[in-house]
Amino acid sequence: MAKEETTILVTNDDGIIAPGIRALVNAVKALGRVVVVAPDSPQSGKGHAITIGTPLRLDQVDLFEGIEAWQCSGTPVDCVKLARAKILHRRPDICVSGINHGANHSINIIYSGTMSAAMEAALEGVPSVGFSFLDYRYDADFTLPQQVAHEVTAKMINTKLPAGTLFNVNIPVVDASAYKGLRICRQANAKWVEEFEERIDPHSKKYYWLTGEFRNLDEGEDTDVWALENGYSSLVPVQYDLTDYKLKQQLISEWKL
Amino acid sequence: MAKEETTILVTNDDGIIAPGIRALVNAVKALGRVVVVAPDSPQSGKGHAITIGTPLRLDQVDLFEGIEAWQCSGTPVDCVKLARAKILHRRPDICVSGINHGANHSINIIYSGTMSAAMEAALEGVPSVGFSFLDYRYDADFTLPQQVAHEVTAKMINTKLPAGTLFNVNIPVVDASAYKGLRICRQANAKWVEEFEERIDPHSKKYYWLTGEFRNLDEGEDTDVWALENGYSSLVPVQYDLTDYKLKQQLISEWKL
Repeated sequence: MAKEETTILVTNDDGIIAPGIRALVNAVKALGRVVVVAPDSPQSGKGHAITIGTPLRLDQVDLFEGIEAWQCSGTPVDCVKLARAKILHRRPDICVSGINHGANHSINIIYSGTMSAAMEAALEGVPSVGFSFLDYRYDADFTLPQQVAHEVTAKMINTKLPAGTLFNVNIPVVDASAYKGLRICRQANAKWVEEFEERIDPHSKKYYWLTGEFRNLDEGEDTDVWALENGYSSLVPVQYDLTDYKLKQQLISEWKL
Repeated sequence: MAKEETTILVTNDDGIIAPGIRALVNAVKALGRVVVVAPDSPQSGKGHAITIGTPLRLDQVDLFEGIEAWQCSGTPVDCVKLARAKILHRRPDICVSGINHGANHSINIIYSGTMSAAMEAALEGVPSVGFSFLDYRYDADFTLPQQVAHEVTAKMINTKLPAGTLFNVNIPVVDASAYKGLRICRQANAKWVEEFEERIDPHSKKYYWLTGEFRNLDEGEDTDVWALENGYSSLVPVQYDLTDYKLKQQLISEWKL
């Protein structure tokens, strides 16, 4: 695709004023016509939520010099749907989401608004990618993530990929000298062990804050968690047929329905 | 498992007062000790959202005769996490979610709070199942869905299943005489074609309602959509490793990183 033909939809889940989306716009703006459609407030952990019970607002904003940008009152998935239907009036050529402030490797993909936005575009047949940086801080240094986002997006634009291709890219916190490059991985088998912090409000009523500890249960060296722990950025190609085909065959023979 | 040993966690996404969860409690209460933990408000379309930025409330309620029940201010996934950590203080033996007012077949699984609640329990190693009834009406007749929920839950309790087994069960709207039984299926390849209805509020500002049309792109007779259209309940065994292994191998050989 030539640059003038490529429409790049940029979104995220940390909200349109997050430094990570600014880094992503800077990463891809030389690669095509960039249109930003992102939530007007932080939407972390929203997974694949859509807004059904309340109407959506969409307002054009001037936040990125020379680049069309819209903020939306809904979830990351709502942003992608609205972008196609009400702003672009067609599918974008590629959708990039992020750069998330914090990791979205392994099982975190199912909780992640960043990845759900990218998956929504992929479901529409658009090659899509979510970028997440393991540094959670608001003032994190996005130099390396921005380079990786540029590299991967350029590669996606210049490569023939299947319709609906979706990548989950995570970038480690490492010194430039220790960085080893991009590695194609599978999703690690990992989980969160959650606890809830119990507190008492000023009206003597209990409330709970979700807290949790991440546990990697996977010793493989082909996983995203392994790559990130060893100085690589991880790239996991993602699909969304959740059928467990092995168990399906087993049930068909054993349950004799 | 003997009845007295089986703790059954019941949750949903339509909220604790929905008729569907009452039908589910009735479907499973003879099979073990039932504990209900469900959202205090409708949470349809919340996907795998979790609550991070606000604290959670949890209140015991008396809605189901003789059955312990709690309402939670969070999402369906929050309910499952809180049930383990703050109510049961251990994992339930089985988690049943629903019965949802409306379909959750095919790609709808990724938008569904009903299925995300069940998936959250499955991620903890708990055999879990989500039930959804294709009749969206509040006053739908849950006789058949309740029978199917009883049958499947009893089968799950009495069968040795792999840890983390997760089923997506949908029940069609058919006359009892035309009902053909349960069928093990794969997730149909389908999508939503969305539009947004644009309106003007009393302050002359635009707002949008999400609307959409479901399109089945799959002609297979082994899918959940096919089963439901042909008088069967569908059961899709679900897994949550989203890695696209075929594309992973292709990228490793073609991208030469």
